[in-house]
Amino acid sequence: MESMSDMVENMARRARKAAARLAYVPGDTKNAALENLARSIGTGREKILAANALDVEAARGKLSTAMLERLALDDKKLADIARGVEEIAKLEDPVGKVLCATRRPNGMSIEKVSTPIGVIGIIYESRPNVTIDCAALCIKSGNAAILRGGSEAFNTNAAFASLIASSLDSAGISADSVQIVPTSDRAAFAELLKLDQYIDCIIPRGGAGLISFISQNTRIPVIKHDKGVCNVYIDKFADAELSKKLAVDAKCQRPSVCNAAENLIVHKDSAENLLPAVCAELVSRGVEIRAGAGAKGVLSRNGIPCVDASDGDFSTEYDDLIISAEIVDSLDSAIDFVNTYGSSHSDLIVTSDAGRAEKFMARVDSACVYWNVSTRFTDGFEFGFGAEIGISTNRLHARGPVGLAELCSYKYKIRGCGQTKGNLYQG
Amino acid sequence: MESMSDMVENMARRARKAAARLAYVPGDTKNAALENLARSIGTGREKILAANALDVEAARGKLSTAMLERLALDDKKLADIARGVEEIAKLEDPVGKVLCATRRPNGMSIEKVSTPIGVIGIIYESRPNVTIDCAALCIKSGNAAILRGGSEAFNTNAAFASLIASSLDSAGISADSVQIVPTSDRAAFAELLKLDQYIDCIIPRGGAGLISFISQNTRIPVIKHDKGVCNVYIDKFADAELSKKLAVDAKCQRPSVCNAAENLIVHKDSAENLLPAVCAELVSRGVEIRAGAGAKGVLSRNGIPCVDASDGDFSTEYDDLIISAEIVDSLDSAIDFVNTYGSSHSDLIVTSDAGRAEKFMARVDSACVYWNVSTRFTDGFEFGFGAEIGISTNRLHARGPVGLAELCSYKYKIRGCGQTKGNLYQG
Repeated sequence: MESMSDMVENMARRARKAAARLAYVPGDTKNAALENLARSIGTGREKILAANALDVEAARGKLSTAMLERLALDDKKLADIARGVEEIAKLEDPVGKVLCATRRPNGMSIEKVSTPIGVIGIIYESRPNVTIDCAALCIKSGNAAILRGGSEAFNTNAAFASLIASSLDSAGISADSVQIVPTSDRAAFAELLKLDQYIDCIIPRGGAGLISFISQNTRIPVIKHDKGVCNVYIDKFADAELSKKLAVDAKCQRPSVCNAAENLIVHKDSAENLLPAVCAELVSRGVEIRAGAGAKGVLSRNGIPCVDASDGDFSTEYDDLIISAEIVDSLDSAIDFVNTYGSSHSDLIVTSDAGRAEKFMARVDSACVYWNVSTRFTDGFEFGFGAEIGISTNRLHARGPVGLAELCSYKYKIRGCGQTKGNLYQG
Repeated sequence: MESMSDMVENMARRARKAAARLAYVPGDTKNAALENLARSIGTGREKILAANALDVEAARGKLSTAMLERLALDDKKLADIARGVEEIAKLEDPVGKVLCATRRPNGMSIEKVSTPIGVIGIIYESRPNVTIDCAALCIKSGNAAILRGGSEAFNTNAAFASLIASSLDSAGISADSVQIVPTSDRAAFAELLKLDQYIDCIIPRGGAGLISFISQNTRIPVIKHDKGVCNVYIDKFADAELSKKLAVDAKCQRPSVCNAAENLIVHKDSAENLLPAVCAELVSRGVEIRAGAGAKGVLSRNGIPCVDASDGDFSTEYDDLIISAEIVDSLDSAIDFVNTYGSSHSDLIVTSDAGRAEKFMARVDSACVYWNVSTRFTDGFEFGFGAEIGISTNRLHARGPVGLAELCSYKYKIRGCGQTKGNLYQG
C-alpha cells in the first residue's frame, strides 16, 4: 500500500508536471474548463448537496452554529459559486502579458512577460466554496493547485474534486492541474509542507493558528493573510459628518473581517468636539469603546460609556463590535501610533488638509492607506481586480489584495541577432 | 556584558526603526549620503588599504590565491568601488514611483506606489567590495541594511562601516540605516536568521552551501541566487556561424559565472553538420566536452575529443571550461531537456525560425529565455537596471536580475471623499 508520504509526494510530482503544460495553455482552453466547471456545478447540484449533507450531519454538535452555517451549502450558495467561476472565466488572461519592453544599445530586445508561479498549495478551513474559488483562480492563472480543505468538508470537497477533474479533462487539460488531498489526515498536510522541490508557494486561508503553524513548518514561500489591526485617525482638520460616517462604516459594516477598524485615534484639537460625537454613533450601533487614558477623560465628561483599554488592546484584532480609542498630540504621533500598534494592513486619515493626508499616506507603513475613504475597501473586487484569493500581509511579492496578477510570476524574453558579451569568436 | 543574541537583536531593532524613517527620506538626501560615501572612499584610501592589508596578511596561507586576490584591495579597485557608488547616486529614485493608478466607479482613486521593502539582511563571503555595493543599493532603495560579510574581510569591513556611518550621518540619515555585524563570530549570523519580527528579507551572496544553510535556518523570506545550469540549444534551422559564435560566448567568455552555459544540445538534423563544428571551436578554446550517448558517436566519427557524460553531468554547474553535449530528436525534446536538467536560469535557442524560437521561449520555464543572444547577458547592468544586487532564482517577488526596482515593495494610496462600503450612517 502507498504510504501517506508517497501519496502526497506523488500528487506534488504530478502537479509539477501538469504545471509545466498548464503554463502555456491558451486562455480560451482555460476558459472552456471554467465554463465546464460552472455548468457542472449546476448539473451536479444533487450530488453536491447530498455529499454536503453528510458533512453537515457529521459536524452537528461538533461545530458552532456559525461554523455549521459556513459549511452548509444550498441552491443559492451553489448558484453563487457557479456564477463566481463564470466571472473568473470572463476576466482577461493574466498570463503572457508584456509587463515592460525595452531595446538595449546592442540591439537586443528585452520583454518582461507574466507567467504562472507554478504549483500553489492552498490550505484552508471549513468553507467548501473556497475549493471551487481557488481551483478557478489557479486554472485561470495557469497555476497547478494542490488544495487541502478542512476535514469537516471532506465529502463536499470530494464531490467538487470530481467535477473539477472532469471539467479540466473535457477541455483537454490534465486533471492533475487541480488536485485535492484525498484524506482528512493531518499528516498529509504536514507532508505537503515539506515538498519545496515541487511546490512553489503556499497560500493559507484560515485563522492565525493555521498561518503560524504553516510559517513555522515549511521552507516554501508563504503568501500570508495575517491579522488586520486597522486604524481610523481623525485629524485636527476633520469634518464631523465625514468622521462619523467613515468610523461607523470602518467599524460596524462588517466587524468580523480583516479590513474592519480596531482603533480610533483622534487629534487632541478634535478630541472635545469629535471623539464623543463619533463614539456616540458607534455606541448607538452596539460598539463597546475601550478608552486609553486620554480618551477616557473626554468620553466620561461627555457621558459616553466606555471601559479602560488594557495594554494589549491597541494591537488586538477584535473582529467584533469593540473599538479601542485614544487621543494623540499631533499628526506625527498619530503616524507613530499606527506604525506601532497597527498591523500594516489598512489605515485611514480623515482630514480636509491635503498636505497632512499626503504625509500620513507616505509615512504610514501599511499595504493600504486611505484618505477620507473607509478601510473596508481593501478587497480585490473593490480594487477592480475582478477576483481575489486573499489579502497579503507580506512585503515581498504581493502586498494587499491578491488577484490574478499577483498569482503570476514573470520571465524575460530576449531576442537578438547574435549579440555576444565578448569578442572571442571572429568567424 | 551584552550577550551575542542581545547585540544582534538590538542591531535589528535599531534597523527596523531606521527603516521607518529611511522609507520617506527624499531622493536628494539619499544621493547626498551616497556622494559622501564615494568621496570618503577616496579620502579614506590609506585607512582602508591598511585595514585590508591586515586581512590579507591574516588570510595568507589559509585562502587560495584566487580568494586572496578577491580579498585584496588596491587603488584601482577602490576607485572602481567609489565610481560604482556615484553611478548608483545618479540613478532614478526607485521609491515613490506610481506603478499604476485607477479610479473606481464610486469615485475613489487607487494609486499603487513603490516603497522600500524595509530591513534587508545581506550575508556574503569574502569580497569586501560587496559591503559598499550593498550598502549603496540599500540606501538608494530606502531599505535599512544589516550586512554580514566574511570573517576574512573583518578589518576591511570595519573600515568601510565607519565610512558608511559618517556618510549617512553627514547627510542627516541615521547611521543605523546600514549596520555591519561587528564580529566574525558565526553565532551572530545564526542569531540574525531568527529575527523575522525585524528583518523582512535575506539576500545571500555566496556559494551553494551558504544559500542552503540560510534557507534551512530561517523563516525570513530569502531572495536566492542559486545555481545556473544554462543551456544552449542549436535548432534544426540554425546558422553555423551564429551557432559557433553564441556557443563560444556563452561557454568561454567567463566560465565561472552563473549565466555561462553548461549544456549544449543540438537538434538531430543539425547534429552531423553543426555539433562537430561548434565543439571544435570550444575544444580549441580549452573546453572539455562531456558527450551523451548520441553526441558521442557524431563527435568520435568527426575526430572531436570528448569524454562520456555521466548521469549527473547534465544538471551540473561546472563553472569551468567543461560542457555537456547531447543530441535531441525535436524541438519538444529540447524544451523537455532544458526544463528537466536546467536550473530555470538562462537558456538559449539558436534558430532562424521565428515560430520555433517563440515556442521555445514560451515553454522553457526559465527566468531568461534567449533567441540568438548569448546567455551571458543575464545581468542587471546589461538589462539596463543601472545596478544589480544579484540574479534571483526565486519565482516569487523577483526573478532574474535584481536591481533597485526589485529591492522595492509597494503600497496602495486610496483617496476619496467619504466613500463607504455600506450605508449605515445617514447623517
